[in-house]
Amino acid sequence: MLYNKNILLDAYKNAKYQVTGHGKRDVSVLLDSFSNQSGLEESDMYGSGHIIDSFQEKMAAYLGKESAIFFPSGTMAQQIAMRIWCDEKGIQKVAYHPLCHLEIHEEDGLKELHHIEPVLLSDPNKIIKRDDVVNMKEDVSCLLLELPQREIGGQLPSFEDLQATSDYCREKGIKLHLDGARLFEILPFYNKTAAEVCALFDSVYVSFYKGIGGVAGAILAGPKDFTEKSKVWKRRHGGDLISLYPYILSADFYFDQRVEKMEEYYEGAKELAALYNACEGIRTLPITPVSNMFHVHVQAPKHEMERILADTYAESGVGLTGHLRENGENRCFFEVSLGDNYLAVPNSALKKTFTLLNKKLKTRTLV
Amino acid sequence: MLYNKNILLDAYKNAKYQVTGHGKRDVSVLLDSFSNQSGLEESDMYGSGHIIDSFQEKMAAYLGKESAIFFPSGTMAQQIAMRIWCDEKGIQKVAYHPLCHLEIHEEDGLKELHHIEPVLLSDPNKIIKRDDVVNMKEDVSCLLLELPQREIGGQLPSFEDLQATSDYCREKGIKLHLDGARLFEILPFYNKTAAEVCALFDSVYVSFYKGIGGVAGAILAGPKDFTEKSKVWKRRHGGDLISLYPYILSADFYFDQRVEKMEEYYEGAKELAALYNACEGIRTLPITPVSNMFHVHVQAPKHEMERILADTYAESGVGLTGHLRENGENRCFFEVSLGDNYLAVPNSALKKTFTLLNKKLKTRTLV
Repeated sequence: MLYNKNILLDAYKNAKYQVTGHGKRDVSVLLDSFSNQSGLEESDMYGSGHIIDSFQEKMAAYLGKESAIFFPSGTMAQQIAMRIWCDEKGIQKVAYHPLCHLEIHEEDGLKELHHIEPVLLSDPNKIIKRDDVVNMKEDVSCLLLELPQREIGGQLPSFEDLQATSDYCREKGIKLHLDGARLFEILPFYNKTAAEVCALFDSVYVSFYKGIGGVAGAILAGPKDFTEKSKVWKRRHGGDLISLYPYILSADFYFDQRVEKMEEYYEGAKELAALYNACEGIRTLPITPVSNMFHVHVQAPKHEMERILADTYAESGVGLTGHLRENGENRCFFEVSLGDNYLAVPNSALKKTFTLLNKKLKTRTLV
Repeated sequence: MLYNKNILLDAYKNAKYQVTGHGKRDVSVLLDSFSNQSGLEESDMYGSGHIIDSFQEKMAAYLGKESAIFFPSGTMAQQIAMRIWCDEKGIQKVAYHPLCHLEIHEEDGLKELHHIEPVLLSDPNKIIKRDDVVNMKEDVSCLLLELPQREIGGQLPSFEDLQATSDYCREKGIKLHLDGARLFEILPFYNKTAAEVCALFDSVYVSFYKGIGGVAGAILAGPKDFTEKSKVWKRRHGGDLISLYPYILSADFYFDQRVEKMEEYYEGAKELAALYNACEGIRTLPITPVSNMFHVHVQAPKHEMERILADTYAESGVGLTGHLRENGENRCFFEVSLGDNYLAVPNSALKKTFTLLNKKLKTRTLV
């Protein structure tokens, strides 16, 4: 029989229910968010106009910052934030985690375009804590903290440690920048408002297509003189588009629809992680999620687990994930990020899925 | 009476007919282009997927290039083109016109992000010709030609001179890049296909929100190894968005709708320019347009001309322009760019407008 490379993804898509995300990333994501638009509102024009101004003001207020600027992407927004803080201090070095988005997903834009050298803090498998910053030997202009640290399952420092890191950075003249790609998602765990978290940071980036589930786009917020400089760099990067409204209006629509649902996603993640952890050879990272996301680590080879999962979905009608990643020869893992889809899965179907999955995993270890 | 700063723009907007452009840049531009979308098509994902692949292939074929990549903006696409050609030759210098978009509209992104030094060719008020290139003293990696040269009214070299420039550049190992922000618009004048014009160039950028009238977005086309590199730089710039489909699908929609209308816009521009040139104290640049655009130079102070134009629109119901720019104390000018709007203005109303305008201008000079 021909081995089908997409067996898992096909089975996931064909299942009656999908556990992760908000639904398909198809054109309806845009269309739904524009269904209440008459079409009469004037486009933003190169960063000006009612649509962009009002959303930027709304986000500045929500984040508790003086000013906020809409960007097409976080990649652009964060490189620019780093550049501004480096130019201000005159030291072209920033500190961040070894698995920071800027380090592993941006083709070294920070180095190639801005000639900024990163100082990598902490082990890749741990989060950055105050002690890592205190023990840092290099002088840097800025420390970037990603909350939660996505590539290690979405882990967080305690709020007390975060506060202490912030205090230390202010004392030492190091700007503190928040990679808040998933900021909305961690507020229930911290039991803080966005403004309370952002108050610890000099600048903040948030994304609108993760937990919020919009089409694309990002906000960079901070002091007015910082955001004014960011507009100049946005133009230099080619991000000052004549019209950003397709992203802005959809971001605004889904922000209103989902920002208050983060608690539900978070509770769902804890519930789902417990179901995974009850299975043979499975452990989630973190064991107890602190946001809507976590990683699932499996003691089984990828190709074997793909078959087990696909069979499980076919029997239960519930798809858990569409992708596995190898993690050595006999281990694999995947990322789980919960949204509206999870809220629609019947509890009975979910329980049945995990009973089936666990049975298959146990049978496998007995062979 | 309080002087209203927006008197001209208000009068233009309030007129029954507007002579320039395709209509209001409002949200309906997006909505109209999505009216035939069911919503079921999957989003592009970070530069992959059917929507982006098929449009890129369509544009590569149309432009006669091996490969084409969709970018959120021309600013991003062109800086990247310059960077690739400079890195390939190892000389961080490019040649372009003193009023090139990269020189005057991009906050020096080329210099600040890519450390590329421009060599300015020709007088600002003239177009670059082969002789300017031959007489250039510096060695450069690339020559960028903007066709038509927008900031001087949209002027063009003859096709023969263009061919000679291209031949010279190939002989000397200088890459030739086309700033084709308005490439579609010049094809009727040259009486060439896009592929025939693009064959003279190593790389080409085209825009989808000028003559095409889409929401935003650009294509960069060239050899496959060039466009592959451009994808890496697109990611570095923060332009490799998770979803570009709002721009791609609207670009495709309006491309199909308008690319064959460029001849009509061009004929309209020649007709309209003749009407302007028959007025007292008015000269268009160029006298005879070579695309859908031209500039209108007026021998009258801006504030005076604003009043004259606003009064004319109020009487005739036809708005000619909403913006004037000062050009010394007693002169002003504005840009005209024709699209669908022009085709909807009744000839009688247009003639009446110019009769009124000319009368007012003549009365003014008699005072």
